[in-house]
Amino acid sequence: MSNFYALIMAGGSGTRLWPLSRQSRPKQAIELIDNRTMFQHAVDRLETLLPPERVLVVTARDHVEVLAAQVPDVPGENFIVEPMARGTAGAIGLGALHLKQRDPEAVMAVLTADHYIRDVDKFRRVLSAAAQVAREGHIVTLGIQPSFPSTGFGYIRRRDRVGTVEGFEVYAVDAFVEKPDAARAAEFLATGLYSWNSGMFIWQINRIMAEFARQMPAFYAQLRTIEAALGTPRQAEVLAEVWPQVRKETIDYGVMEGADDVLVIPVDIGWTDIGDWAAIYQLHRPDEAGNVIVNTEHVSVDTSASFIQGGKKLIATVGLKDVIVIDTDDAILICARDRAQDVKLVVEQLKKDGRVEYL
Amino acid sequence: MSNFYALIMAGGSGTRLWPLSRQSRPKQAIELIDNRTMFQHAVDRLETLLPPERVLVVTARDHVEVLAAQVPDVPGENFIVEPMARGTAGAIGLGALHLKQRDPEAVMAVLTADHYIRDVDKFRRVLSAAAQVAREGHIVTLGIQPSFPSTGFGYIRRRDRVGTVEGFEVYAVDAFVEKPDAARAAEFLATGLYSWNSGMFIWQINRIMAEFARQMPAFYAQLRTIEAALGTPRQAEVLAEVWPQVRKETIDYGVMEGADDVLVIPVDIGWTDIGDWAAIYQLHRPDEAGNVIVNTEHVSVDTSASFIQGGKKLIATVGLKDVIVIDTDDAILICARDRAQDVKLVVEQLKKDGRVEYL
Repeated sequence: MSNFYALIMAGGSGTRLWPLSRQSRPKQAIELIDNRTMFQHAVDRLETLLPPERVLVVTARDHVEVLAAQVPDVPGENFIVEPMARGTAGAIGLGALHLKQRDPEAVMAVLTADHYIRDVDKFRRVLSAAAQVAREGHIVTLGIQPSFPSTGFGYIRRRDRVGTVEGFEVYAVDAFVEKPDAARAAEFLATGLYSWNSGMFIWQINRIMAEFARQMPAFYAQLRTIEAALGTPRQAEVLAEVWPQVRKETIDYGVMEGADDVLVIPVDIGWTDIGDWAAIYQLHRPDEAGNVIVNTEHVSVDTSASFIQGGKKLIATVGLKDVIVIDTDDAILICARDRAQDVKLVVEQLKKDGRVEYL
Repeated sequence: MSNFYALIMAGGSGTRLWPLSRQSRPKQAIELIDNRTMFQHAVDRLETLLPPERVLVVTARDHVEVLAAQVPDVPGENFIVEPMARGTAGAIGLGALHLKQRDPEAVMAVLTADHYIRDVDKFRRVLSAAAQVAREGHIVTLGIQPSFPSTGFGYIRRRDRVGTVEGFEVYAVDAFVEKPDAARAAEFLATGLYSWNSGMFIWQINRIMAEFARQMPAFYAQLRTIEAALGTPRQAEVLAEVWPQVRKETIDYGVMEGADDVLVIPVDIGWTDIGDWAAIYQLHRPDEAGNVIVNTEHVSVDTSASFIQGGKKLIATVGLKDVIVIDTDDAILICARDRAQDVKLVVEQLKKDGRVEYL
C-alpha cells in the first residue's frame, strides 16, 4: 500500500521518568528497553510495513536533532518541528498538513513514541487491517484490551460489530470516555465493551482535514494559512506567527468525541504505557526475588520486588521491598514502587528551586 | 598529672559503615561527624587533659599513615603498629609495653576511636578522676549509664560504692557480663546495677603487666620477648616473629573477668557506639520530617525518618520511611534503617565475589 504513512508523535517530556528523562533528552529519546530508545522502538515497529521514507515525526525543536540521529534511515525532511506544543490536535494537524502536501491521497497512521508494544507482528497486522478500513473513508482507532481497571487511560465504548478485516473484528464506536474513577473503571471492565484509548488513529488525509474544518474551524483556518506558505520561503515565518495563536487541544476532545463514523479495532498486542518507572519494572522478567536489575552491579541482601537501574556505581541494597533506584551521572532517585507517579513532584520541586541543571 | 598517658585503640575496620568505610580507610579514619574523623574526635577529646606527646595510638600497618596525617600534633613515634590484629588484649599489651619503656610509672587510659562522646567536658573530668583512682593501684573502667536494654554491648555489674572522687561515684565491680539476650538486658536495666562496658580502662602500667603475667602467662612471655628487643635493631624482626603466635583474645575475657579489685565509675557522657549507619542517624538532630541529610543536595517527596548522606550527586527520595542512603564515589548503599547491622553482609558478599575494588 504505497500511500500509507505513519506520523509518530514524539513531542513528550516524561518527567515521571526523571532522572533519566530530562528536558534535553526526553523519555522517548532514552534507552529504556533492550538498549533501544522508545522512539527507535516506534520506528523499528514499522519495518516491513512502511519504508522509512514514509515515516514522519512531529517533535519539538529541542529534540529534533537527538531523535533524528537515532533513526538515520528516516530522512531529515520527515521531521516536522512544532514551534511549541499545542496538544495532540495541534501536532496531528501540522503533521497532516505536511503529509497532504506530499500525498493528498495518503492514509496516515498516528502513532506514539511513549508506548511499548510486545507483540510487534500483531501490531503490524492490525495496522495493515486498519489502513484497509481507513481507505474506505472511516476514522479508525486501535482499542487496547484492558488488562486491569486503569484510571490512567481514556476508554472507548463500542457498539455493533461492523465486520472483520484480516482476522480483526471491527466495531462502531459508541463513545470516547475520559479517564474514569476506580469504580467506573471496574464497571467498564465488567461490561466487556470498553477498550483503552491507545492514541493510535488511522484515517485518510482528507477525512481528518474535513473533521478539523467541521469541528475545529478556527484551527482549520490556521492550518490553511500555514498550508499556503508550506514549501515557500515564508514557511518558517508564517508558522512562527500562527502557531502561538493555536489553542491547545487534544485530538480526543477536539475531534474524536464529536466525530461520526468512528470504528475501533480492539486488540491485545502487549501494549504498555511507559508512564513511569513502575511500568518499566513491569516490562521486565524479574529474578527469583522479584527484582529487576538493569545496567548495574548489584549486591542484594534481602531485597525483593525492586527495580534497580544503574549508572557507573555498584548499588547495594539491604532489607528493601518494592523500591525503585535509578542512578544517573548527576542524580539518584530512590522511590517507593507504588509512588512512581510522584516522581513528577521531584521535577516540580527542582523547577521551583531553580535547579535547572537537574531538569 | 605528668605521667598520665592515653592509648587510643584505632585498629578496627567497620564493615557496617560500608561504603564509606573501606579496608584502606576504616571507619575511625573517615569524617562521620562534624567534618572530623572518629579518630580525630578521639584525640581532640584529650585536649587540656594530656599533651599530644602523651597520646599513643595502636593501629594496623595499612592505616598508620592515614591516621598519622589526621593528627599532626601527635608525634609519629607514638603510633604503634600491630603486624596483625590479635584482639584488644594483644593491642593493649603491645601498647603497654611501649609505654612501660617510656615511663614505667605511667598511668594509662585505654580509649577507643569508634565511639562518639557528646559531653566531652564531663569525659575529661571523669578520666581525670579515674586516673587518680588508678594511681592507687586499682583497675578502673568507665561504665556507661545504659539508655536502653541493648543486646549489643557487654555489661558491668557493680557492688558497693567504695567512694567518691571529684564528684564521681566509684563502685566495686561484681562481674563483667557478656552481651545478654533481650530479656536479660531488660532485667539488667531494671536492677539499676548495670553499666555498659565502654571498653575504656585506666590503670598503672605495672598493674596491667602483673595481670598479664598472672592471667595470660603465655602472652606475657611473648611480651617479654618483644620487650627485650624494643629499641634495638632487632625490634621489627622479633615482633614479626612473635606476633603471629600470639593468641587472639579480648581484654575483657583475658584480663577483666578474672581480675580482682576492679572499680567502675558509672557515667552518662552521651556515649554512642558508632557501630552502623543507624547509630550515626541517631547522633544528628533530624529535621521536622525526621530526616537527617548530610553533605548532599536532597529533594524529598514524602520522605521521613531517613538518613541520607551524599557524595557529589543530587539525591531525590519519594515515599520512603526509615531508609538509609549513602552515596560514595563508586558505590551506593540503600538500606532499611532497622537492618543497618546487615550492611556487613554486603561486604561479606563483595569479598566472596572477589570484588576487591569495593572493599
